[in-house]
Amino acid sequence: MKKLTERIKKDGKVYPGDILKVDSFLNHQIDVRLMDEIGEEFHRLFADREIDKILTVESSGIAIASSVSRCFGYVPVVYAKKTAAANMSKDTYACKERSYTRNLDYTIQVAREFLSKGERILILDDFLANGEAMKALINICNQAETIVAGCGVVVCKTYQPGEKLIKGLGYDLKVLARVKAMSDDGQIEFEEED
Amino acid sequence: MKKLTERIKKDGKVYPGDILKVDSFLNHQIDVRLMDEIGEEFHRLFADREIDKILTVESSGIAIASSVSRCFGYVPVVYAKKTAAANMSKDTYACKERSYTRNLDYTIQVAREFLSKGERILILDDFLANGEAMKALINICNQAETIVAGCGVVVCKTYQPGEKLIKGLGYDLKVLARVKAMSDDGQIEFEEED
Repeated sequence: MKKLTERIKKDGKVYPGDILKVDSFLNHQIDVRLMDEIGEEFHRLFADREIDKILTVESSGIAIASSVSRCFGYVPVVYAKKTAAANMSKDTYACKERSYTRNLDYTIQVAREFLSKGERILILDDFLANGEAMKALINICNQAETIVAGCGVVVCKTYQPGEKLIKGLGYDLKVLARVKAMSDDGQIEFEEED
Repeated sequence: MKKLTERIKKDGKVYPGDILKVDSFLNHQIDVRLMDEIGEEFHRLFADREIDKILTVESSGIAIASSVSRCFGYVPVVYAKKTAAANMSKDTYACKERSYTRNLDYTIQVAREFLSKGERILILDDFLANGEAMKALINICNQAETIVAGCGVVVCKTYQPGEKLIKGLGYDLKVLARVKAMSDDGQIEFEEED
């Protein structure tokens, strides 16, 4: 998605430890117009299939998922939660996930009532690097006996194992911006589009 | 907002400890169409003023803020973060907040680069009860020398101190659904609309 890769080149910041920050438009400050364009692009990529529900994980997937929902006729969005909250149902599907960025383990969970057997789920997230979050979301879909209709991520670091891993498991993964290299002086290189 | 109060009556669940759960459409599963209607309603209520940016707090404010942004010509959304992440700028405005629902203290923070002196900020959140989150967001706006152009919440428990507190501080607070009582058998009573 040309507009997205241009924006990442312009506003993305590379930090030591292989960190790409896009928090000026994606995951701290949000450019909602760009989210809507991302929504249209995911709709174009997944237009050939029926989607009953979108599953993402808090917090950075929520704005993306909302924009995509609108393009799919307002299908419900469910976001997995990262911490056990006092007012959350104990009746959840849960899966552990390792965050390399934050260097800690999470449990992500979804209330059982919001995923029903046989529903066709589109899984969305902002970043794919090691694939831990995506794997955990797929695991939750499988626990709920839903059908993973597709997986979409906005930014993927293709030199990390996540993309190969998810595609290797047989899932149809679409990526909007494929980062193939980042240099310490802040240069970001992209692969060709899907 | 009649459609919202009807939805809360229909799908809201009352739990012991004065907890109102609306996670089937607002803060775990999201009805994006309802979010867009909420966006239009906030736009109607704040149409008389200029808004440069929307400030909310993760995670439950994000979908709401995205829908409101669209109605205000895609002004940027900034969401405060609740935990110090390894890849977050240390250069943040921060404020402590007590969560009564979760019975713990958070620090919420916003990177300084995303709030500029003199900007007119619309603060949005899903719930107002004790007013702790709203006070923290206002505090951050004040640290950044921005102008709080208005405060909007989707659901307010009017028998708790938050609404009086925020209005008492002189802020223009708009509420879409004002809960005046909840009973243990699950009945929810609303006050008249603004």
